[in-house]
Amino acid sequence: AVIAIPAKFVPGVMEEIVKKGVEACLIISAGFSEVGKEGEKLEREVSRIARRGKVRIVGPNSLGIINVAKNLNITFFEGEIQKGGIAFFSQSGALGVGILDSSKIRNIGLSLFCSVGNMVDVSFPELIEFANSHEDTKVISLYVEALKKGRKFLKACKDSGKKVIFLKGGRTSKGMEACKTHTASISSDYSIYRGALRQVNVEVVETLEDLFNLSKIYENFDELGKSVCIVTNAGGLGVLASDACDKYGLEVVELPGEVRKELNKCLPPHWSKSNPIDVIGDADARRFERVFDTLAKYNFFDVLLCLLTPQAMTQPIETAKALIKFKERTGKPCFTCFLGGEKVREAIKLLEENCIINFEEPEDFARLFQWK
Amino acid sequence: AVIAIPAKFVPGVMEEIVKKGVEACLIISAGFSEVGKEGEKLEREVSRIARRGKVRIVGPNSLGIINVAKNLNITFFEGEIQKGGIAFFSQSGALGVGILDSSKIRNIGLSLFCSVGNMVDVSFPELIEFANSHEDTKVISLYVEALKKGRKFLKACKDSGKKVIFLKGGRTSKGMEACKTHTASISSDYSIYRGALRQVNVEVVETLEDLFNLSKIYENFDELGKSVCIVTNAGGLGVLASDACDKYGLEVVELPGEVRKELNKCLPPHWSKSNPIDVIGDADARRFERVFDTLAKYNFFDVLLCLLTPQAMTQPIETAKALIKFKERTGKPCFTCFLGGEKVREAIKLLEENCIINFEEPEDFARLFQWK
Repeated sequence: AVIAIPAKFVPGVMEEIVKKGVEACLIISAGFSEVGKEGEKLEREVSRIARRGKVRIVGPNSLGIINVAKNLNITFFEGEIQKGGIAFFSQSGALGVGILDSSKIRNIGLSLFCSVGNMVDVSFPELIEFANSHEDTKVISLYVEALKKGRKFLKACKDSGKKVIFLKGGRTSKGMEACKTHTASISSDYSIYRGALRQVNVEVVETLEDLFNLSKIYENFDELGKSVCIVTNAGGLGVLASDACDKYGLEVVELPGEVRKELNKCLPPHWSKSNPIDVIGDADARRFERVFDTLAKYNFFDVLLCLLTPQAMTQPIETAKALIKFKERTGKPCFTCFLGGEKVREAIKLLEENCIINFEEPEDFARLFQWK
Repeated sequence: AVIAIPAKFVPGVMEEIVKKGVEACLIISAGFSEVGKEGEKLEREVSRIARRGKVRIVGPNSLGIINVAKNLNITFFEGEIQKGGIAFFSQSGALGVGILDSSKIRNIGLSLFCSVGNMVDVSFPELIEFANSHEDTKVISLYVEALKKGRKFLKACKDSGKKVIFLKGGRTSKGMEACKTHTASISSDYSIYRGALRQVNVEVVETLEDLFNLSKIYENFDELGKSVCIVTNAGGLGVLASDACDKYGLEVVELPGEVRKELNKCLPPHWSKSNPIDVIGDADARRFERVFDTLAKYNFFDVLLCLLTPQAMTQPIETAKALIKFKERTGKPCFTCFLGGEKVREAIKLLEENCIINFEEPEDFARLFQWK
């Protein structure tokens, strides 16, 4: 059952639901514990009726539930949602709406969405268990302000066969104050959360950008190594990428002598001779491709990062195709930073359709490894 | 004069230029010190001829110069560039191209662009001086790998009436190695740079995103205070904003009693009663407007941050208009995070046309204050 009537009528409806033998219901109605004493009383009443009648509840004050793969949308949100393998469970429904609406432009492919609301019954542990048995879901992303069942939550994460990524609202004293007025929840010390979660293999991030970028990575890969080979047609981007890798503990691995020798044959004489492999600004797609072909023969790095800006001779789409070919041939994780606007738009679309994540700048890629 | 012929012919052309009494020239040709010993020799020769003949040089190995306001484009870059008040001078031409091409989608309004190339003559100090007397320029953004004239540079920054924002490539040991192969420049210890630059009031950032977001702020404001009032229709975003402000030293200022009292009159009974002002998810533009009208009467904060996600009752465009009205009426700096895709696209465009910067998430706003 789905309940979306004024709060004061909810207990009555719950009684009927129990009589009819309904097993589960979603309460979208607001006006419960989040509005104060009166609401708390109502919420306790609803909860009591449900427990007695063995009805499971999502909510109240939930924005609703979406099964993206099945086109089942029980929310007030209308609009197209990008399909994919990320289950997103949020303690803020409003935040959820923002993510749903931006799923297309941010290329966040979702499988499930649930706004948990006041969590009188179903909360994060049950949702994690459900997501684990949900075929379309590859990774679980959470926005949490406070957990109601800490132990159960940690156990669910520990038992989860799918990676859990965790963004905590209320990490600072000001944030905690805001939590209190928002979800009436008292959030504990952030460092305690972080420590406990890392022990059960949960990745803890601090921004929405990192939450979904890391989710995209785990949607595609179980684990990533930390040695990176960088190929770039823009020296400056290569420098910034090296800085970012160094800052966040990624290794810009040295080129083996034989690789360097072979690259000498397919690159202009003044190429960088080292990693980052600077193919020089006048590189066409064919030159990139020859570099990829060479790299495909050796196994000295974990991750390929390809950087490109649209210069006079650059062929963004053809270069993207060459990279996709490399990825399919080698199975190596590939990431890109095609920095530009109109001139790289189609190429980025092609990359993302082929599960190559494009970052706005190298730092956005490297930063994700600080959580690992 | 503009020179874009193979390197080996450049000295000959320079001789002719001197004879003709030309005062300045841009050398786009590559193949000088960046390619090794032979190129270095050529570069010294060109430099000698120019000095003797009193010809000023930009380059060689420069991507070129753009005066955006005057539609003067002496580069190989073709495409539309967003006009504005930011002068961008880059030691990486290729990086510059990426920024030029993305200027529209990132809403980076440029006034001048110069790719400095190998800097045999004109380098950053001269460009800063020029930008200072350039009417359309409000702020100066730099991508630098190594300075050739440190003292002169610091003096130019110190004397600059316009804010200088500085992104250094080669901050880490790996980044420095990459610099060496890229611009053949040996970049000094980053902490020395940072310390010296801060003394002359330069803002030092570490990502392209921060470089241009901070540039946009200084394009519009001389200085910003650090006390923030947050208005949101999404509790979770308010929590994340509070966390981010706390993390980076912004003050989420307490609401004065009389403000709270007055807000009680125009908000639902269960509004947050504190800063962040949570106007509740069902707020229409009129409710936002009443809050703005109340805030306009008091002077207890420096900066207004308005957060919005597109929920069922939300009116993004009308809310944007109300905020623009508030800004015009009070002159207060306003920033937004309208989190969404299609449903907020037009509203964000309207905000940015009215010099209200929209951030992808609250952290992107707050982080800029760590540099201040």
